Parts: sequence; C-alpha cells; structure tokens
Amino acid sequence: MKNIADNTVRRLSLYLRFLEEFQHQGAATVSSEALAQRGGTTSAQVRKDLSFFGSFGKRGLGYSVPQLIKRLREILGLGRRYKVFVVGAGKIGSALVQYRGFQERGFDIVAIFDTDPEKIGKPWNGLVVKDAAQFERDAKEMMPDIGVIVTPGEVAQSIADRLVKCGVGAILNFASVQLQVPETIPVKAVNLVLELEALSFALASK
Amino acid sequence: MKNIADNTVRRLSLYLRFLEEFQHQGAATVSSEALAQRGGTTSAQVRKDLSFFGSFGKRGLGYSVPQLIKRLREILGLGRRYKVFVVGAGKIGSALVQYRGFQERGFDIVAIFDTDPEKIGKPWNGLVVKDAAQFERDAKEMMPDIGVIVTPGEVAQSIADRLVKCGVGAILNFASVQLQVPETIPVKAVNLVLELEALSFALASK
Repeated sequence: MKNIADNTVRRLSLYLRFLEEFQHQGAATVSSEALAQRGGTTSAQVRKDLSFFGSFGKRGLGYSVPQLIKRLREILGLGRRYKVFVVGAGKIGSALVQYRGFQERGFDIVAIFDTDPEKIGKPWNGLVVKDAAQFERDAKEMMPDIGVIVTPGEVAQSIADRLVKCGVGAILNFASVQLQVPETIPVKAVNLVLELEALSFALASK
Repeated sequence: MKNIADNTVRRLSLYLRFLEEFQHQGAATVSSEALAQRGGTTSAQVRKDLSFFGSFGKRGLGYSVPQLIKRLREILGLGRRYKVFVVGAGKIGSALVQYRGFQERGFDIVAIFDTDPEKIGKPWNGLVVKDAAQFERDAKEMMPDIGVIVTPGEVAQSIADRLVKCGVGAILNFASVQLQVPETIPVKAVNLVLELEALSFALASK
C-alpha cells in the first residue's frame, strides 16, 4: 500500500468524515453518489478510490456505513495509538494537546521538550517540560512513533535530524522551513503563513 | 505570472522568511548557497527560482538582502492590503484575527458572519458578528477580496458558492471538505485532521 497518492489518502479521510456524519444521522447504507456529492467529487472517483482497497459496495444497495467506517479506519491506521514527542513548548504545541482530534486519532503526547530554562521543569498540560538537550535518552525508553516540531525555523532541521536518529517514523512540522529527511520518513507540514502568501500571490498575479 | 507552480511560490515565501531573519541579524548581502542551506534546497534551485522573476544577484557578491526582500514582497503581493470576510464566528476565526501574521501580510478582516442567533449581534474582536443570511448585501458595499470559511463541513460548499457569486477573488478554507469553485478562484485549505490521518496512514502502511 505504499504507492497511494497523497490526494487519494486525503479523499479517504474525507469519506471517513462524511460516513461518520451519515452514521450520526442514522443511515445504515450510503451510495457512492451520496458520498461524492458530499465531498465535491464524482461517484466514479469514490468507487475507484474504494475499490483500490478491496470491493466494499453492493450494486444497487450501496455501502454499509459501519463496515466502510471500520475498513477506512483500518486503512488509515486509526485502529492503533501513536506515541508523540512534541519539541517546542509554545502556543501551538499547547493547542495541539488540547485539540480533541489529536487524541481521537490515537496521537498520545508522551513527552514535551524545550530549550528555555524558564520552561524546563514546569507543568504543561499534564506533563512536565523536559530539557530538549536530552530527548535522545527519553526516546530510547519511550520509543516515540511521531515527532512534532513546533520550534523556531532556525533549529527545526537539526531537531528533525535528531528525531530521525532516535527512530521516529514520521514528522509533523509547524516550523516555516522545508525539512530534509530520509525518503522513508513521511513529513506533513502545517504552515498558515505559506497558505496566506500563496493566496496573496494568486490575487496579485490575477 | 499565472503559471508558477505552487511549490515555487512556497519556496519564495520561505526565502522571504529567511531574508527577514538575515536582515534582522544585520546581513546586507546573502549568497544563494546560504539561502539554500537555510531552506533545505540547493543553490541551483534558489538561483532558478529567483531568475524566473528577473535577475537579482551579482556573481561573487550574492543578493542584496533589502532589495531581494522588497522584490519578493512585490511578487508575493504583500505590498497591498486585502479585505477579508470571515464566515463562522468560532474558535479558529477568533484565533485568526488575533494572529499577528494575518495582519502583517495585509489581511484585514472587515466582517464576520454566523448563522447562530446567540452569536449574531455580539462583539467579536473589535467587530460585531453579522447574520450570515445577508452577507451578499455587505459584500456589495465592502467588496471583499478573500473569503475565509470556518464553518462546519456540511455548509462550506454553499458558503463558497455564495462568496464566489459576491466576487471574492480567493478562498481560505478551514472546513474538512474539498470545495468546488471556478478555476479562476484560488482556494487554499488548512486541515489538521487530514494531515494527521495522512501521517497515521503512512505509519500504518510501513
């Protein structure tokens, strides 16, 4: 399943969201047309995306909502829990821990690090901020799956290098820098400034 | 300048960020190597990206930091201000208004709308929440450049349709739905849930 395009994964995420809504509304089955309409795509696209992971629908009957939810959660790896290291005890990190969607998707923050002596040792959303200088030691014990980087841009690459050495399998990057990591380590970036500037660029070049 | 790839625009944004840092540190010139190193790319890529918009560097001397900042701000459309309609008076909208980077990039929120009678008429970060039922009327007066959608997914598409009819030139979408709008309207999406699920998918398929 390694060669699935990012866009396909995004659509699977969206289908899951819609199915959960349909379930909430009491629907037992759903057609590819209904999913397509809800998600701004075509029913052919929905069928193609889903058939890729095995055939789920019955002609004329549509998809079973609970079955398809279960299967999509498996495909998206949402059946298990992930241990997360957060590096940078700032506002975004804090918002993440309080964000329900983070825990709901199985992301457990097991440690938080910072370099600021003012922050180290202080309580932080049920954890205690640890010294970033020694996260290698904690990584050996805790074996984190994911590293979240919420540091200033200047240090993000060196933190990423250290996280990769510690064996994290994926990185979520909030710093405004493009990280270079081995190809086997997926990186997802969330960067509002880049989105804003892409918008103003698009408006300016009209 | 319409056919610039999204990735190029992203790199220009990043270069601008780094140049502002270099300026802050007192540097008058910068080499393509220094920019490349800071941004996780190659100096050939930096030169290629920048040459696309006219030649700025001098061989052996590098780029003038203030000149390149000025030019990049122009290219990215950061020289002017944009009027923004926010639809959805929730937490994300509120965080946006308080987010310094939003104003710094020339994005002025001129009106905020919601359908919740409890919210309509209430003060909201220096504005008053208006009834979303009538944003067409306000749009005629205020001529917004950008619409920001921070509504539940179910209504996002209909809000997008209405914003486009009102003449907004671009949309920033925080709802977890893929919007369908005319090709001439750039849409940027910010969706943390999708990034998280893409990460867990990548980890699950390892």
